[in-house]
Amino acid sequence: MTVQRLSPEILGAIESAIGQNGIAADPAGMAKYLGDWAGDYRGQALAVLRPASVAEVQAVTRLCSELGLGVVPQGGNTGLVSGAIDTKGGGLIVVSLERLNAIRQIDPDNFTLRADAGCVLQTIKDACEARDCLFPLALGAQGSCQIGGNAATNAGGVNVLRYGMARDLILGLEVVLADGELWNGFSGLRKNNSGYDLKQLFIGSEGTLGIITGVEVKLFPKPAKTETAYLGLASFEAAIALFNRARRDCSDLISAFEIIGSECIDLVRLIDPAMRAPVSAPVQVLIALSSGPGIDLDALLAAFLGDAMKKGLVSDAVLATSSAQEKSFWAIREGLVEGQAKRGYHVRTDLSVRIPDIPALIEQARRFVANYHPGWIPLAYGHAGDGNIHFNVLPPAELAEHEARARGADVVAGLYEIAVGLGGSISAEHGIGRSRRKEFWAGLSPTHRRMVTALKNAFDPNGLMNPGCLLPARETIA
Amino acid sequence: MTVQRLSPEILGAIESAIGQNGIAADPAGMAKYLGDWAGDYRGQALAVLRPASVAEVQAVTRLCSELGLGVVPQGGNTGLVSGAIDTKGGGLIVVSLERLNAIRQIDPDNFTLRADAGCVLQTIKDACEARDCLFPLALGAQGSCQIGGNAATNAGGVNVLRYGMARDLILGLEVVLADGELWNGFSGLRKNNSGYDLKQLFIGSEGTLGIITGVEVKLFPKPAKTETAYLGLASFEAAIALFNRARRDCSDLISAFEIIGSECIDLVRLIDPAMRAPVSAPVQVLIALSSGPGIDLDALLAAFLGDAMKKGLVSDAVLATSSAQEKSFWAIREGLVEGQAKRGYHVRTDLSVRIPDIPALIEQARRFVANYHPGWIPLAYGHAGDGNIHFNVLPPAELAEHEARARGADVVAGLYEIAVGLGGSISAEHGIGRSRRKEFWAGLSPTHRRMVTALKNAFDPNGLMNPGCLLPARETIA
Repeated sequence: MTVQRLSPEILGAIESAIGQNGIAADPAGMAKYLGDWAGDYRGQALAVLRPASVAEVQAVTRLCSELGLGVVPQGGNTGLVSGAIDTKGGGLIVVSLERLNAIRQIDPDNFTLRADAGCVLQTIKDACEARDCLFPLALGAQGSCQIGGNAATNAGGVNVLRYGMARDLILGLEVVLADGELWNGFSGLRKNNSGYDLKQLFIGSEGTLGIITGVEVKLFPKPAKTETAYLGLASFEAAIALFNRARRDCSDLISAFEIIGSECIDLVRLIDPAMRAPVSAPVQVLIALSSGPGIDLDALLAAFLGDAMKKGLVSDAVLATSSAQEKSFWAIREGLVEGQAKRGYHVRTDLSVRIPDIPALIEQARRFVANYHPGWIPLAYGHAGDGNIHFNVLPPAELAEHEARARGADVVAGLYEIAVGLGGSISAEHGIGRSRRKEFWAGLSPTHRRMVTALKNAFDPNGLMNPGCLLPARETIA
Repeated sequence: MTVQRLSPEILGAIESAIGQNGIAADPAGMAKYLGDWAGDYRGQALAVLRPASVAEVQAVTRLCSELGLGVVPQGGNTGLVSGAIDTKGGGLIVVSLERLNAIRQIDPDNFTLRADAGCVLQTIKDACEARDCLFPLALGAQGSCQIGGNAATNAGGVNVLRYGMARDLILGLEVVLADGELWNGFSGLRKNNSGYDLKQLFIGSEGTLGIITGVEVKLFPKPAKTETAYLGLASFEAAIALFNRARRDCSDLISAFEIIGSECIDLVRLIDPAMRAPVSAPVQVLIALSSGPGIDLDALLAAFLGDAMKKGLVSDAVLATSSAQEKSFWAIREGLVEGQAKRGYHVRTDLSVRIPDIPALIEQARRFVANYHPGWIPLAYGHAGDGNIHFNVLPPAELAEHEARARGADVVAGLYEIAVGLGGSISAEHGIGRSRRKEFWAGLSPTHRRMVTALKNAFDPNGLMNPGCLLPARETIA
């Protein structure tokens, strides 16, 4: 039975646990917590709670457990799959981690950092930079997203190729479990092979097994040098061949290998009409290398590109000669995301396939859009080095939004089918949340479903952690 | 109730599932499966089963599940913590994966490989090399250990610093669950953020949640260049300072940073009396860098070491000028392990602490041995870049083995106490198995224990997967 509103008694109990300042139960106070960053989803909640300490997160969770109230843990609300927005209005409590936002410790000699879950990613990156270290997680939302959310969603971004996803960067977690108990999984150790690695359960679990309150991450030396080039290529096949050569010829120094279909460039001009890509080829690649001080990175990249041009893989190459030029290359890549947001509603995917299958994925997806949704504008770009393509589709400008949304669902379904047909994934990095739950669940084997359900039941037996996210709602679980 | 022997009916059922060739139930046939590589443990079993296909592993597991018989999955039997040897004789069935030993697929364009669990690590490394790729997992036992065992124990080794432990190298698993069902967790995708990452449960779970039958791993370009140096330093503090400088100055190109206390060198001479360390300083470091073709790695290492000598961090440095010399450096590091084995029983640990705490760990451990166990010979060496020290102790030569073993337990307890006192781990890479279970379990918080137990119960409700390993035996679980 869905609770419709909190009684004064319950509100009183919450207030005595976390203070009046920690509660928003009126529509105005809740509004900013009930809509996502991209503007795709609006949700509801019985109340938004803002605990200011780990003990307060425990108190709130214990109370909700006792009352049988479902909890939606929320970070910076920059996710794209409605993981922290209850669109169904299932009578849930949002628990925002935003007041738990301190960096607890930086240890540059051990190359580790420990922070509260609500600490904004950019704040962490800046603090590391000030200590001559690098925390490499890098994504468009880094000025708003929080490290706890990054952990809970196993965030990806543009540096995955070199440094891995959030999972690969996390050394330890601190988690409030469904019954309010606290698990301290911090150690500061780079290597610790002692029994089940429990932090792995929570990374990428999207708040369905517990509430992450603290994160310990690995740091890296701040690169002394970066070299960036913007390349023009004839085809996606050439881009994949180039990537394979780059892996072999540029050691492990490639920090980004982003692919952009030239059709995306028009969109960038929505942000800045004066912006031009430095090349005009049908497929464009942004490649970045970084290293410590003793390597002639400039020569390495120049030699690699010279050879690639000789082999006919690359038709045009512009090497950034200043950090301003480097930024201008990245502005094109980032402008893509902003440009799409400016266009309002659009189909957004996050597909992955085996790296050699990227050209087939893009070709099949383009053909599908042209044949079945003429007038819609396909955009292909993404993290090619990870096999991850954001194949997005803009509705025709003249289409009313509600019509576009209705039609968009068919477009998504067709694109998912193509990725799955190639043995790929419908979620390379954005996660499942609520918006992809049905398709995700439908694609699992019965054995896989049973395993997911067993894990959920083991850690959240009453189904109160982020109900409706990732797994089907409690009552429909076998 | 412990079963003492299998009835003819049960043996008949097993035989019809996997054929007579798949069963050894007599002492002679079982012997090689009931002792470990290092010669530390002897165990018992009702029978040793050798299924030759995934379907046969399923059949065997299903049968054991129906009969309530506990199963010990076994790989190359090179583990050091009695994880695959039932020393207590608890009436268990050993399931050896050795006949499941094919490489299923190498995909150099996607930089992935898929193999049966029983495939020997060296076989995989050789197959990759032949396709111009590198599978970087590297450990002393690589000629015997199997990839399934590497996954089940989250194996470490000498390349962890650059490439991570087995967990970091695994893209997918195939697992037979406790009830005999098969979970196919293969995808070939470099990036797939779709719900709980179930493979993480099984990696490092030491066979207590299921039997791994197949492993999919990430490959890397084969390095074109390797540079190795053997260094002499005045202290462990200097070694840690050097490592920090190396991380910053040599980019991510360090593939090994091994530390050796000079007292270890005598031991190496047990293998080859003519062997001499190239330097005679109290602390010795083996550093290796590797890269692709376009980097002047030789100059990078020489410049780094020149600077380190100027700063007084390094007193002697010998750069390998041939691959024979490089091999001779590694022969010292590897001779250490063989030398200890030649001495027979000795105390073996696998401690980790925060990297800056390594000197304190070694100093406290040495003082402890000198004060409480005079005459015992402490050896300090290990993977300093991972914070992982193998602080081993040889009993006095004149001590009878049974006395040495009795006393050795006290030595181990004292060393564990020192590591834990520094916030460290008693198992950096070797795992828990049966031999460290008591100390491991005693060190866990009640919350952590409940989580471990919940996970075990969710995937192995009848407690039949590797009973007695990692967790307390079933009947004592709360």
